[in-house]
Amino acid sequence: MSNAIATLPPEHHCCPLEQLQARYRQVRQHTLLLAEPLSDEDCGAQSMPDASPVKWHLAHTTWFFETFILETLEPDFAPFHAAFRVLFNSYYNGVGDKHPRPQRGLLTRPAMAQVRAYRHDVDARMVRLMDSELAPQQRAQLSMLLTLGLQHEQQHQELLLTDVKHLLAQNPLFPAYLDAPARAVRELVAAPDGLAGWVAFDGGLVEIGHDGDGFCFDNELPRHRQFVAPFELASTLVTNGQYLAFIEAGGYRTAHLWLAEGWDWVCSNRLQHPLYWQEGEAGQWLEFTLHGLQRLDPALPVVHLSLFEADAYAHWAGARLPTESEWELAAQGQAVQGGQWHPAVAAAQAGLRQLFGHCWQWTSSSYAPYPGYRTAPGALGEYNGKFMLNQYVLRGSSCATPEGHARASYRNFFPAGARWQFSGIRLAR
Amino acid sequence: MSNAIATLPPEHHCCPLEQLQARYRQVRQHTLLLAEPLSDEDCGAQSMPDASPVKWHLAHTTWFFETFILETLEPDFAPFHAAFRVLFNSYYNGVGDKHPRPQRGLLTRPAMAQVRAYRHDVDARMVRLMDSELAPQQRAQLSMLLTLGLQHEQQHQELLLTDVKHLLAQNPLFPAYLDAPARAVRELVAAPDGLAGWVAFDGGLVEIGHDGDGFCFDNELPRHRQFVAPFELASTLVTNGQYLAFIEAGGYRTAHLWLAEGWDWVCSNRLQHPLYWQEGEAGQWLEFTLHGLQRLDPALPVVHLSLFEADAYAHWAGARLPTESEWELAAQGQAVQGGQWHPAVAAAQAGLRQLFGHCWQWTSSSYAPYPGYRTAPGALGEYNGKFMLNQYVLRGSSCATPEGHARASYRNFFPAGARWQFSGIRLAR
Amino acid sequence: MSNAIATLPPEHHCCPLEQLQARYRQVRQHTLLLAEPLSDEDCGAQSMPDASPVKWHLAHTTWFFETFILETLEPDFAPFHAAFRVLFNSYYNGVGDKHPRPQRGLLTRPAMAQVRAYRHDVDARMVRLMDSELAPQQRAQLSMLLTLGLQHEQQHQELLLTDVKHLLAQNPLFPAYLDAPARAVRELVAAPDGLAGWVAFDGGLVEIGHDGDGFCFDNELPRHRQFVAPFELASTLVTNGQYLAFIEAGGYRTAHLWLAEGWDWVCSNRLQHPLYWQEGEAGQWLEFTLHGLQRLDPALPVVHLSLFEADAYAHWAGARLPTESEWELAAQGQAVQGGQWHPAVAAAQAGLRQLFGHCWQWTSSSYAPYPGYRTAPGALGEYNGKFMLNQYVLRGSSCATPEGHARASYRNFFPAGARWQFSGIRLAR
Amino acid sequence: MSNAIATLPPEHHCCPLEQLQARYRQVRQHTLLLAEPLSDEDCGAQSMPDASPVKWHLAHTTWFFETFILETLEPDFAPFHAAFRVLFNSYYNGVGDKHPRPQRGLLTRPAMAQVRAYRHDVDARMVRLMDSELAPQQRAQLSMLLTLGLQHEQQHQELLLTDVKHLLAQNPLFPAYLDAPARAVRELVAAPDGLAGWVAFDGGLVEIGHDGDGFCFDNELPRHRQFVAPFELASTLVTNGQYLAFIEAGGYRTAHLWLAEGWDWVCSNRLQHPLYWQEGEAGQWLEFTLHGLQRLDPALPVVHLSLFEADAYAHWAGARLPTESEWELAAQGQAVQGGQWHPAVAAAQAGLRQLFGHCWQWTSSSYAPYPGYRTAPGALGEYNGKFMLNQYVLRGSSCATPEGHARASYRNFFPAGARWQFSGIRLAR
Repeated sequence: MSNAIATLPPEHHCCPLEQLQARYRQVRQHTLLLAEPLSDEDCGAQSMPDASPVKWHLAHTTWFFETFILETLEPDFAPFHAAFRVLFNSYYNGVGDKHPRPQRGLLTRPAMAQVRAYRHDVDARMVRLMDSELAPQQRAQLSMLLTLGLQHEQQHQELLLTDVKHLLAQNPLFPAYLDAPARAVRELVAAPDGLAGWVAFDGGLVEIGHDGDGFCFDNELPRHRQFVAPFELASTLVTNGQYLAFIEAGGYRTAHLWLAEGWDWVCSNRLQHPLYWQEGEAGQWLEFTLHGLQRLDPALPVVHLSLFEADAYAHWAGARLPTESEWELAAQGQAVQGGQWHPAVAAAQAGLRQLFGHCWQWTSSSYAPYPGYRTAPGALGEYNGKFMLNQYVLRGSSCATPEGHARASYRNFFPAGARWQFSGIRLAR
Repeated sequence: MSNAIATLPPEHHCCPLEQLQARYRQVRQHTLLLAEPLSDEDCGAQSMPDASPVKWHLAHTTWFFETFILETLEPDFAPFHAAFRVLFNSYYNGVGDKHPRPQRGLLTRPAMAQVRAYRHDVDARMVRLMDSELAPQQRAQLSMLLTLGLQHEQQHQELLLTDVKHLLAQNPLFPAYLDAPARAVRELVAAPDGLAGWVAFDGGLVEIGHDGDGFCFDNELPRHRQFVAPFELASTLVTNGQYLAFIEAGGYRTAHLWLAEGWDWVCSNRLQHPLYWQEGEAGQWLEFTLHGLQRLDPALPVVHLSLFEADAYAHWAGARLPTESEWELAAQGQAVQGGQWHPAVAAAQAGLRQLFGHCWQWTSSSYAPYPGYRTAPGALGEYNGKFMLNQYVLRGSSCATPEGHARASYRNFFPAGARWQFSGIRLAR
Repeated sequence: MSNAIATLPPEHHCCPLEQLQARYRQVRQHTLLLAEPLSDEDCGAQSMPDASPVKWHLAHTTWFFETFILETLEPDFAPFHAAFRVLFNSYYNGVGDKHPRPQRGLLTRPAMAQVRAYRHDVDARMVRLMDSELAPQQRAQLSMLLTLGLQHEQQHQELLLTDVKHLLAQNPLFPAYLDAPARAVRELVAAPDGLAGWVAFDGGLVEIGHDGDGFCFDNELPRHRQFVAPFELASTLVTNGQYLAFIEAGGYRTAHLWLAEGWDWVCSNRLQHPLYWQEGEAGQWLEFTLHGLQRLDPALPVVHLSLFEADAYAHWAGARLPTESEWELAAQGQAVQGGQWHPAVAAAQAGLRQLFGHCWQWTSSSYAPYPGYRTAPGALGEYNGKFMLNQYVLRGSSCATPEGHARASYRNFFPAGARWQFSGIRLAR
Repeated sequence: MSNAIATLPPEHHCCPLEQLQARYRQVRQHTLLLAEPLSDEDCGAQSMPDASPVKWHLAHTTWFFETFILETLEPDFAPFHAAFRVLFNSYYNGVGDKHPRPQRGLLTRPAMAQVRAYRHDVDARMVRLMDSELAPQQRAQLSMLLTLGLQHEQQHQELLLTDVKHLLAQNPLFPAYLDAPARAVRELVAAPDGLAGWVAFDGGLVEIGHDGDGFCFDNELPRHRQFVAPFELASTLVTNGQYLAFIEAGGYRTAHLWLAEGWDWVCSNRLQHPLYWQEGEAGQWLEFTLHGLQRLDPALPVVHLSLFEADAYAHWAGARLPTESEWELAAQGQAVQGGQWHPAVAAAQAGLRQLFGHCWQWTSSSYAPYPGYRTAPGALGEYNGKFMLNQYVLRGSSCATPEGHARASYRNFFPAGARWQFSGIRLAR
């Protein structure tokens, strides 16, 4: 999602306020849980302009509640700290100035302790607000904004993990974020046995886009008709072992497999393998993970690929990447049921496996507005569509996606060269 | 077309060899005609990496016939000059090495005279080949490659003009390419009187892509079904006068009108107006044209816009850019009839005007393969799709497009920031 | 000193080992004292490639003792941490690999606590070594290396302060390093009253370079003869008030005052004032200092200038910058006597004031080897002269220079565009 | 000389007007002679920002006479073309605007023919002016400016050749500027037989700087006293063969031989040999020369080195580069006698050989003003010293230096990384 959230859900896509109160506590606590294995020093550093420090994620998600909810609905609102309005604004021009993104790692003040205090303060005020007497219209507005704020925070939970992984990977000591796979962050789940088969779909004049009462971002709307030709999807994700065969066949040295811009990217960056792979001393492949440097497991889905690499692999394999419509159409029948945390459920279903919970799957679709998509008024809605250029859609969800944040119509998006997300390949033809 | 041609027409989309012989002479001569107002010095310079020297265009189009036709079909083939295979290869990795694009302006040797001799030599050999006895299969192959080579040369005729315009615009003397508008290059044609109205289309499950026996590039195929929602198109192009109102309303200083990447582009390049506009001493607007510096005519279509500017203008005007399907659907009923050289014809038709012959019209569609699109084998086909990323489709044709090179299904494409083509705006809603 | 230390003193320029033991404790403790006002987060960040995190300074100075002393002289030497040899090597190729300088801010591990433990461990081992029985030759070697290591650490004490200042200055909160001027870091001392007069010197065939038994760096040697024409030096440093007059006279907009490269530097960086100056809301000038944002005091010496600015100012003032020989010749008679910490002493002397303890003074001399200068063998000496190109000499010492680290023959050096040191102007003519 | 001329000779350093008239004709004609082997296309291209097109050299040297002489002294002065004042101004801010240097290759207009007409016109007007009645003061001024203008044009004659060489070297056809060595441009002269010996000099308190009545640039003044320690110079220049030994000994892979900035330069540019060297198919070394690609002659002086390479070689050879004072002192007794065109003369002298006429010899001296150097008023003198930063002095003269343009006190200067001049090495110790 390029650190840009796609916002402004229609009002009817929110939960009742009572459910949201419990959910607020849970989501906010989960963010802190993710920061727990890290020192204050770890939380302050920024490894590249695309990534943000953990401390900034903790503060920005809090800023979101303070700016879009408390500032509007809290009686006698006063900001926790006047300067935070600028410091922790990500890209909302309508809110005012922003601190330059590449300099987020230089904000050693406010200290982590102060940011924790900021979270604590805003949480307390949020709870008071949720407990207070509100007019029905304010109640509805609060529900809508709360829903959005929590979805927003969940997006940052995933970014927090991928940004931390990128930071730790720059350190020659290759420190682990967690010593052993734990519940909160099970990074990679073994792929089901068996090679991928092909699952056929009829296509036709179908409906694409979010349906029903659940929450969705505005970029999943409006649901609209589309004509899709018959197609097939691979039942499983491409594995490390399969991708290794591409490397060993000279994939990174074969111009004609690549998009022109991808070939320039490979050559000018002298790339020879996915991000986080390295060759060990004995010639075996290692992979840096959130649990430190590990021997590469050929059975796991390959991750941390750019669209360029995904496309070149598909080309080499005699296939192609799916369009986002094909992917969504195929996934519409699939129950997420606990999402990525219970992949066994999906695996039990016939046909497609690993749709959710392993890695985001690059599609060939450029990120564009659905027909009839409309920009909403105000700062929240001001920029809904402003990232719809030179970015490509990924579908599914990853091992770092928080529970309850995955659905068939979800549109994640990144530039074609981005590799620090858990991004992989499902083939189509 | 980003200097990249989309190639490999299916065999049945070619003219009979007899017609092609006459056409060969005519197209090849027209290229030389375009270079006539220029000195050898003019023909050697390269004003930016995206542009090429005229001499390079003259040589590269010739290289195309020598490499893809003579090398295959000429008995006892020997190259005109061994080094030209590398020097005048644009991007065909399958053919071998290439000379680095940004250094094309440093090739003072071969001299223009030698490049003219190269053209002359290849033309003579091509004529001999076309006149020679050929087996039916060779005849078919020759027809196919000839058709393609001539279409390729016509694409370069347009690029030659836009590249020359860019070069001359860098010169503080603002020299004219031609003193007065002439038949060969009538740069801009006055817009019809009357403001734009809206023309409504029903959409539905329609067919998009090239149809019939005429030539097309492979990126226009296969013709396929698509569902298009009802839409409206502006009957005319946005004019200089209308665009000036956008500037005067602060368009270049208003962040929320722009795509995020567009706003960065505006800010980092400190842009305030279209390419080639400048403010004169008395405060009036001037525009650099192929006829030199001219007073800006508010009735003419605005040209030399990036997609960023086109999109921001549409946003400001409460409209949007069309998708390429919408544009093609609307244009399907329109006879090109002599194309851009007889705009009066199109103007006489009810409804849509200025579809062809004025400027390329940005669409919101990213350049992507049609469903079922297939890569062809060999160097010619090797790269058909390799430019289908981070580029956007333009439809129609411009005042610089050669006669007979425009059609409803034609897909031109450039990156969102490109401005040196004759690119403008037709609004949709 | 460009973060590069100029090393390898001749053996006879060292103190007796007994004095060095006490000095070791004191210098090492002072470094920790400088880090005391900072959080672990503050200590980890790097604000630009030229600057280093405080944590890195703490570790690198320790690495120096471990690598050049313990590794050589300690029986049964084992490194504190194998990876530190690479992580905290600054530029000694002879020692082995180095961690890339611009990425020092990403080393969130080892944590500050671990670096403190590293210092503690090395200090304990150093004390044991100093207390142990050593052969006379080892004793001499130890004295030499200890002397050098402590001088090295003192250089980093100054860099630590200027790097912290640069980091805090990037923060929109403009946090103070210390709340009020304290003994350890009295940033700026008021200039003596009265305007500068000129002090005349005869010059002649003089001797330049370090003399006597005290420590010096090898770049101060050999002492050699030089012919110096008669000259005059300003008795005091240029003040903020005087520099403001230059600004108000259009100094930053007047090309002919600047060196050609300086003018490019001013234009491409759009500079209008010294680093750390800013205009307050009421139009008055503010200056960011280690005590936070302060109102600019016109009586203080102007600091944080590049050589370009110093040279342009001198040009504007109808004067010039001194050569390093002129400066040294003038300073030779001046007792440092407690150095910059007792400026009253220097002020009491007739004639020249503010030679030491206020700011480094740019000279027009490029940093070059003295005649007869020789490179020493091994890693320590390997690179003594390798920074002698495109850098310019500054003389004197600043408010951040540690006590006992200033002398008339000391040669500090930085590139002409460096501004983050306490660098100012003494005029000559 | 970095394309910057060091100007403003004192009035008494000029020839009588009668001699200057003949010299004017000769020098101006020689410039055209140098352009003769080139096509108009060759004359228009610019291969890098540091180099200029030949056409620009032809026009700029003419602009110099028009601007500084005709504009001042010609009655009823009217410029040949109003725009040329900007187009062909190199760096004189006092004269007004300048055309951006990196865009000189885009000036296809004015055409070469027009520039030749410009030269012709200015020459005719100059001759008329020289023949006219002038007041004694005007006569003196004219003599002074004429002398300077001709020296200026001679500097550009050398740059014209090095710029052409650089341009042709970019062309994969490696075209020769001249087919065979001719009188006008004998590129390289065989080195005398025998290895270099060392010639010893006593040094002492000596005088450096131009002496006598002949012309000199102001940067050679004032003559001043300097103390120089005893030193030795190599009697001959370092040869290709000797430099090859450095390469084969791993010189380009050995960090400790290089200045720190030089090592960065080697690594980031992946350098392995001098500019214009390349390895042939059979493994032998080739060198691109003005006569095309030639087999490397080990007996010739090595040329086209940066100061970085010269310094590293000297380091490797156990020697050092001379200071400019040492070089000048050694050369003071040497008669130039026909300069570089008669190297046999110099070779016949005892001791030092190849001082002039082979290649410029890097010194370790940064380019700085002599003590007492003064800036002159007006545009001509405005910038005399503005290049005195981050440049290093070369002494002697090269095979491309025009006759009569070499002398012992001449100070050429370039940045340390410049390689496109004929720059080589004379060792010192």
